[in-house]
Amino acid sequence: MIITLLTDFGLEDNFVGVMKGVILGINPGAKTVDITHNIKPHDLSGAAFLLRSSFRFFPKGSIHLVIVDPTVGSKRKAVIVETKDYVFVGPDNGVLSLALKNCGGIKRIIHITNSKYFLTPVSNTFHGRDIFAPVAGYLSKRIPLEKFGKEIKQYKQLDLPEVKLTKNKLTGNIIYIDRFGNLITNIEKEKLHNFIGKDKFKIEFKEVNFDKIDDSYAHADRGNPLAIFGSFNNLEISINQGNAKEYFQAEYGDMVKVGKV
Amino acid sequence: MIITLLTDFGLEDNFVGVMKGVILGINPGAKTVDITHNIKPHDLSGAAFLLRSSFRFFPKGSIHLVIVDPTVGSKRKAVIVETKDYVFVGPDNGVLSLALKNCGGIKRIIHITNSKYFLTPVSNTFHGRDIFAPVAGYLSKRIPLEKFGKEIKQYKQLDLPEVKLTKNKLTGNIIYIDRFGNLITNIEKEKLHNFIGKDKFKIEFKEVNFDKIDDSYAHADRGNPLAIFGSFNNLEISINQGNAKEYFQAEYGDMVKVGKV
Amino acid sequence: MIITLLTDFGLEDNFVGVMKGVILGINPGAKTVDITHNIKPHDLSGAAFLLRSSFRFFPKGSIHLVIVDPTVGSKRKAVIVETKDYVFVGPDNGVLSLALKNCGGIKRIIHITNSKYFLTPVSNTFHGRDIFAPVAGYLSKRIPLEKFGKEIKQYKQLDLPEVKLTKNKLTGNIIYIDRFGNLITNIEKEKLHNFIGKDKFKIEFKEVNFDKIDDSYAHADRGNPLAIFGSFNNLEISINQGNAKEYFQAEYGDMVKVGKV
Repeated sequence: MIITLLTDFGLEDNFVGVMKGVILGINPGAKTVDITHNIKPHDLSGAAFLLRSSFRFFPKGSIHLVIVDPTVGSKRKAVIVETKDYVFVGPDNGVLSLALKNCGGIKRIIHITNSKYFLTPVSNTFHGRDIFAPVAGYLSKRIPLEKFGKEIKQYKQLDLPEVKLTKNKLTGNIIYIDRFGNLITNIEKEKLHNFIGKDKFKIEFKEVNFDKIDDSYAHADRGNPLAIFGSFNNLEISINQGNAKEYFQAEYGDMVKVGKV
Repeated sequence: MIITLLTDFGLEDNFVGVMKGVILGINPGAKTVDITHNIKPHDLSGAAFLLRSSFRFFPKGSIHLVIVDPTVGSKRKAVIVETKDYVFVGPDNGVLSLALKNCGGIKRIIHITNSKYFLTPVSNTFHGRDIFAPVAGYLSKRIPLEKFGKEIKQYKQLDLPEVKLTKNKLTGNIIYIDRFGNLITNIEKEKLHNFIGKDKFKIEFKEVNFDKIDDSYAHADRGNPLAIFGSFNNLEISINQGNAKEYFQAEYGDMVKVGKV
Repeated sequence: MIITLLTDFGLEDNFVGVMKGVILGINPGAKTVDITHNIKPHDLSGAAFLLRSSFRFFPKGSIHLVIVDPTVGSKRKAVIVETKDYVFVGPDNGVLSLALKNCGGIKRIIHITNSKYFLTPVSNTFHGRDIFAPVAGYLSKRIPLEKFGKEIKQYKQLDLPEVKLTKNKLTGNIIYIDRFGNLITNIEKEKLHNFIGKDKFKIEFKEVNFDKIDDSYAHADRGNPLAIFGSFNNLEISINQGNAKEYFQAEYGDMVKVGKV
């Protein structure tokens, strides 16, 4: 049984290793796979975006354990969400919400309260080790979800920038920047295609205009910018063999406009 | 059989991957788990602290392989230490010592000398690959410890700052700073409780005084400092949703005083 | 079956995790091992050097999946190379070439074209996920190589600095710098021994001369430079317990001369 891990714990300390130790102590047959642990500390929207872009590539039945938890020790809930194909475990602070909107259907949301499945004692600072890792470990042993707590009906949404659509303009934002400096927007391929139809268009980003969307980084000359649908199926601004973040001095939230011409 | 890895090899080069290759070549059924590889190069005390804070969270019987080895190729010994619940493997330079003091009892210390269990030839620069990884691999196949070398009686201690206790004051130091910037002291919960009893106290760190120890990061206002017993059970200075290292311009060794008032 | 991964994808994003998800979806029994993912973006020669220095430490039969792919989406081929003891998978852009020269014999090179073994649809930006990971997954299930495409005869070579040899001088270059700041040259042990024979020699690097090659870092005083054959069997310039990159302000390509005296 696969348990994926997505956290902002980094790889400098022992947080991730210890969580795996706890999981393997409960289920020696569990197989942990790191999605990433280098989410910027407390960056809920970055984590939510990567989870949404990752979960479906794992075998059905996988457990996705997500811990970005700036308010650990407060009254935010810990939850298990069973969906059509996966089980998600994490704090109910919005970090799961983008994946849950795209998961093909939620079956149950459980508010985790049964301390029988926690480490003893539970610290107030490291629920990853004391609550979430053991719960994921027991879930991977097929303990029924209702054992962990009561069903609830709602989960928390993230408050993210939304794509704005007028008759002639679609306006989005940079919502993620990857290691290669590719600038990923919240404009999804389908939304853009529906807007443009067969019309001519131009994409504006900072001082640069694009009149087409390329198929491949290699279609621009080396060092030149291009617009492309990246591997996440969102509109990206990139540089062939270069770094668009540096080229454009770009930041999260920067605006991208698609206009009809 | 689980083999944990704790090193200062980093993840930029191929050191860690190659060690895992060597282990799996000897025991294809071994399961390696990284504690961390981002110990600051040659930082024995950081590694010793993380090992001490990690080892007990793994299933009994796990092999803990620790390599921070600034004097590789010198006459420092390579050792296996069998304790009540775990087996430790590493250089005898103090890096194991904090864990061994807290391990519940040492059974045997073996000075590794039997080159039958080494790669051939042994380099003078990478004993992790040539000696420690293969020894851990063979240990995970339950080769008896006495095959690896002769028993010895002592292991090397680290020379670390100690908590100082006078009638009215307990003085400790920052001994670890984690990725979130939490400042972890060498003052353990039990020691502090024994000192304070039911008296009033204040904790001094740089220009800030604390008159209580919080239960949770969330008990301070966002961006405000607090004192807390962190997940390692040591007194920590933290900032709710912030970075105490930056806030205080703190460094390893900085003093923390607990005084009766 | 072991699948090693060597990429420039970094560990900040979800690229590596997603590839492992794809592999495990195809072969739940596959065991992935990271060599490194922190190759400098698009650094073919760094990746080629680490692959050459790593592959032989894994069990025979392992599949080595290498993805440093600056021209993804262009016409560069995707290949499988079957050698005496291993199978290599990656883009045919030279990144495999140093390993292949040292692999003990190539049996077959297959140009990957059969989209039956790809994810659908194939993006133009992330062949790691859509082509290479699934191909490695199917290879680990022992799908015969000829199913993936047609045999070809050649693979691309890297254009790397070569060691220059005159009667009295051997001139090489720094080709890799590891996390400890050790400066690794392209001068291999055997080549240097053949050149020197029993003559006296001196090694020049920047303003420093060495008249011997040490056995161990510990043979120099702490903080002092030395020449050594490192764990890769190449001549290295190092500092005992220090950082030669910083000490010498060294960079890739810097020249190292070995002269007879």
